[in-house]
Amino acid sequence: MKTSTTARLFALAFLCGMALSTSVAQTADPLPSWNDGNAKQSIVAFVARATKEGSADFVSPAERIAVFDNDGTLWAEQPLYFQFLFALDRVKALAPQHPEWATTEPFASLLKGNVKGALAGGEKAVLQIMMAAHAGMTTEEFERIVKDWIATAKHLVTKRPSTEMVYQPMLELLAYLRANGFKTFIVSGGGIEFMRPWTEKVYGIPPEQVVGSSIKTKFESINGVPALMRLPEVNFIDDGPGKPVGIHQHIGRRPIAAFGNSDGDLQMLQWTAAGHGARFCLYVHHTDPDREWAYDRTSHIGKLDKGLDEATARGWTVVDMKNDWKTIFPPVKN
Amino acid sequence: MKTSTTARLFALAFLCGMALSTSVAQTADPLPSWNDGNAKQSIVAFVARATKEGSADFVSPAERIAVFDNDGTLWAEQPLYFQFLFALDRVKALAPQHPEWATTEPFASLLKGNVKGALAGGEKAVLQIMMAAHAGMTTEEFERIVKDWIATAKHLVTKRPSTEMVYQPMLELLAYLRANGFKTFIVSGGGIEFMRPWTEKVYGIPPEQVVGSSIKTKFESINGVPALMRLPEVNFIDDGPGKPVGIHQHIGRRPIAAFGNSDGDLQMLQWTAAGHGARFCLYVHHTDPDREWAYDRTSHIGKLDKGLDEATARGWTVVDMKNDWKTIFPPVKN
Repeated sequence: MKTSTTARLFALAFLCGMALSTSVAQTADPLPSWNDGNAKQSIVAFVARATKEGSADFVSPAERIAVFDNDGTLWAEQPLYFQFLFALDRVKALAPQHPEWATTEPFASLLKGNVKGALAGGEKAVLQIMMAAHAGMTTEEFERIVKDWIATAKHLVTKRPSTEMVYQPMLELLAYLRANGFKTFIVSGGGIEFMRPWTEKVYGIPPEQVVGSSIKTKFESINGVPALMRLPEVNFIDDGPGKPVGIHQHIGRRPIAAFGNSDGDLQMLQWTAAGHGARFCLYVHHTDPDREWAYDRTSHIGKLDKGLDEATARGWTVVDMKNDWKTIFPPVKN
Repeated sequence: MKTSTTARLFALAFLCGMALSTSVAQTADPLPSWNDGNAKQSIVAFVARATKEGSADFVSPAERIAVFDNDGTLWAEQPLYFQFLFALDRVKALAPQHPEWATTEPFASLLKGNVKGALAGGEKAVLQIMMAAHAGMTTEEFERIVKDWIATAKHLVTKRPSTEMVYQPMLELLAYLRANGFKTFIVSGGGIEFMRPWTEKVYGIPPEQVVGSSIKTKFESINGVPALMRLPEVNFIDDGPGKPVGIHQHIGRRPIAAFGNSDGDLQMLQWTAAGHGARFCLYVHHTDPDREWAYDRTSHIGKLDKGLDEATARGWTVVDMKNDWKTIFPPVKN
């Protein structure tokens, strides 16, 4: 396409404007919700090292892969994982189509509001609930179900929308890394298809940069229309030693920076740390019972025990939520 | 970082220069190896529709996902898949460590140079050869093995380097789509780890945009160093109905453009075509026995039968290699 001289001049003026505003923006603090301290300093120092051309630790933009756990690292996971709340809501919504659930555990207890009773069946019960909620529809139908749910779901305690239970300092960190040429990925034990419908809007992370656990899907033709059916069969568990496997399978490069909050993230951090050159590993430590929750070594959700020891021994950055973060959640939207 | 006025002016001049040269470049033919004809015109018309802001068919850049088969679509697959040649070379290289292979099929025949005899064992024999060649090492070791092999491997007939047996018109097409805001992915039946070490250099497609077949890997600690061991167990077959599954798993978006050459790509094209809005499906038809190979409905490699019928019935673009491409391979490098 040929452009007129006027249009070309306009385009140049626009580019020039962009260049000026970029240079101004760079003088502002990119991590305003982080208190000045070791955690913030270690992040800024790492980014400076990795992006300084000519330095020994310089990392080419293509290799600037940063991986983030989701539950407990980017958003709240207490007192229950959001995805489990989603599953409970789905079971309730589907109950009219399953009269047999009234007398079959774990559904019978669940439908009477007795979550503890339903979970008495252990891992098998959890799997039954998850499969009932997540399988048996096409991928497009499931995406619509998740979008509808996430648009209205509230946190059990704070009653805030689920997508506002994200950590403001981590949103700033994601943006800061991307502004410095990093490609940010989620690597979560949560369901890949439960996250993808909203991670772009909430975190700025597109579907193709989300790695997670999955169930199998099957290509079928439904009334002549191709569809992917979601099957009640586990495909991949992206947790613990599964995280480096999932990273390798999806990304095919070793990350240079990894962010987690539990022992389920330990192998991801170990895998990241074991590469050559500039590396950065960070644990979010939940230490704030007033503004969020305080839990670590003995928690059922987000247990951080071995990881905390290894982080200390290896000098990884540990964020003390209470003292390192000025604010936890974004301001309430009106 | 604050910049001086001089530096800023220099940066602006640089940006202006870039804008000018971009606008000049756009006037040149982006597909010079394509003869003017239906195939080329259909590509250019589709890209114009999908990228014209304000038009009903406009597709936002984030959704401009284009998927390409590899063997027979981006590089030659006759008379044998390159990856099978790789496996044969690996078996030869590993033979000294496996004295038992001298008397065990399919290896015994293979090591005597009797490929046909080795393949008499059918699918099981192929799987045994592939696993012997692809499993039993760490992912890093395998990457090194592939890089070393691809750097020296020659085509059986032309004797040209494997990475020069790529189709020049398709290289131009990849670049043209990317210049128009498309994100290009490989979606191949070939091994994902066999392609990733060289696709960025050869096609401009980074590892995280390669989808393929895979074997399982396991996170292990070897002498205290974390590693991913490659296991002799199939993880995923990215072929036929597996292609939409692989696309959904890795990308999480439905492509708007798909390029293949065989019935193994048919479901990928169907899945792409079934989305809403602007869509483009293209088959490369191997019709040139002089400059490349001519094969379709009855070929053992790259069979194109049902796909050809469906492409005709649905008006998909079919590239007639002989008549649509001015040149097949890039110029010989000195």
